[in-house]
Amino acid sequence: MKFTESRVRVRYAETDQMGIAHHASYVVWFEIGRTDLCRHVGLSYREIEERGFLLVVTEIACRYRTSFRYDDEVLIRTHIEEWGSRAVRFGYELYDATGSEQHARGYSAHFWLDRTTRRPVAVPEDIVSVFRPLLPAGGGTRRNRV
Amino acid sequence: MKFTESRVRVRYAETDQMGIAHHASYVVWFEIGRTDLCRHVGLSYREIEERGFLLVVTEIACRYRTSFRYDDEVLIRTHIEEWGSRAVRFGYELYDATGSEQHARGYSAHFWLDRTTRRPVAVPEDIVSVFRPLLPAGGGTRRNRV
Amino acid sequence: MKFTESRVRVRYAETDQMGIAHHASYVVWFEIGRTDLCRHVGLSYREIEERGFLLVVTEIACRYRTSFRYDDEVLIRTHIEEWGSRAVRFGYELYDATGSEQHARGYSAHFWLDRTTRRPVAVPEDIVSVFRPLLPAGGGTRRNRV
Amino acid sequence: MKFTESRVRVRYAETDQMGIAHHASYVVWFEIGRTDLCRHVGLSYREIEERGFLLVVTEIACRYRTSFRYDDEVLIRTHIEEWGSRAVRFGYELYDATGSEQHARGYSAHFWLDRTTRRPVAVPEDIVSVFRPLLPAGGGTRRNRV
Repeated sequence: MKFTESRVRVRYAETDQMGIAHHASYVVWFEIGRTDLCRHVGLSYREIEERGFLLVVTEIACRYRTSFRYDDEVLIRTHIEEWGSRAVRFGYELYDATGSEQHARGYSAHFWLDRTTRRPVAVPEDIVSVFRPLLPAGGGTRRNRV
Repeated sequence: MKFTESRVRVRYAETDQMGIAHHASYVVWFEIGRTDLCRHVGLSYREIEERGFLLVVTEIACRYRTSFRYDDEVLIRTHIEEWGSRAVRFGYELYDATGSEQHARGYSAHFWLDRTTRRPVAVPEDIVSVFRPLLPAGGGTRRNRV
Repeated sequence: MKFTESRVRVRYAETDQMGIAHHASYVVWFEIGRTDLCRHVGLSYREIEERGFLLVVTEIACRYRTSFRYDDEVLIRTHIEEWGSRAVRFGYELYDATGSEQHARGYSAHFWLDRTTRRPVAVPEDIVSVFRPLLPAGGGTRRNRV
Repeated sequence: MKFTESRVRVRYAETDQMGIAHHASYVVWFEIGRTDLCRHVGLSYREIEERGFLLVVTEIACRYRTSFRYDDEVLIRTHIEEWGSRAVRFGYELYDATGSEQHARGYSAHFWLDRTTRRPVAVPEDIVSVFRPLLPAGGGTRRNRV
């Protein structure tokens, strides 16, 4: 599995009164992993939108094992789980800074939309091609569980 | 299925540059539905914490169908999907203000923790009893997909 | 001083590890007060944007006296501090649910922008007129401190 | 003026439907600048809390000049504006990635609290001493405006 790595530090604003990072923050970190993956392959998500495409979220899931605390460094490993003609699914694994302990994992599923019409669309081959080095063999195997 | 209802209005701060409510906001709305369910049965989540218990999140999932826009009123319907001795699972359905169109649905799974030791714990019967009117028959059937 | 009132309940996601509502949440509550003021006078901020105007933020300030806690009901009192041809300044006072204790107060200053050109603009008289019942006498006195 | 530097990239979740970073995000970035300043002088804010002190926010202000957009890199320059026996005031300047254009500036005022009693307290000399290299001459001059 080919993945890209991102790092975020837990913000004070992301903690809650349990003294840990609030669970909704993980969804935002997934998004950071996803946009960093795009940048890593050479086409930032900003450019993707500027070219007229949106990657709208259709599903999200996260399984939490160990909490993160304020000021912890979170290592995000992002990979492409599935790649279809009109849909993409990214997988995420969140680790401690050393990459030795997995704290959480999840996925997000998406449709490509035409930014103007807001209708589902297949992205052109030149966009697909930049992601190719990270595509799973055979388009990915659908996993239904986090 | 017995559910409780909550209403939130999409905040400007919750929108993103796609012009719709950001998908992480739904996870926060689920939390509002969950705490309103507690208040509805007569034991606010605040009191639950004050009595020494935490309802920590172990899993979250959401399936998005139709987006919400700024200033839309969101109707949240929350129910208890499963109720075990140490774990709970809440289900959520998000509708437009009239309750006629489902925009999203999802669930959150939780463990009860002792607030001091932060170890899994079974909540006492007097807490269970307040939730009983909303418990699914037979403790609920586990659904693995959103 | 004529004000409008809004109520929000502190969300769990808005707390931080100090066990109180995070200070950035107050800025979001100000925004809720401001959009409710617009709705109250009969022209929702959503409609204002649809008519082609944006109320962009140029300055914000908040003075914090007493903290809010999770599940507290916050009473927001919003008024128009200044109203110029191209700029507006709203004032906010945050109280406990009974309105007897002020927890925080602040203001936000804004320019009107044309939504298409993103240039400063004077809003037309028919928009000004709906706000007139809440305008301060003489256009307001500029206060430089929170 | 001695300052420390931090960099954040505007998250998609931080944008709003105006297509720019929401103004409340700046308050969170200020917090990042402030905690990075602590880390830079050799005493992380996490350690400060572990030693029994809280730096509670009493006032915040921000003046917005130019907006930030999604994926923009924000350069945060943080300095100590005032340092009293029980109160601190940090100043922030937000620049584009090259440091050539100031987009926003602001400040945050704080009291030191004892974490247990939640009462104002003077921090001990060994904490003061680590901040000394960044303290303004004469304890700072109070500026009342952003």
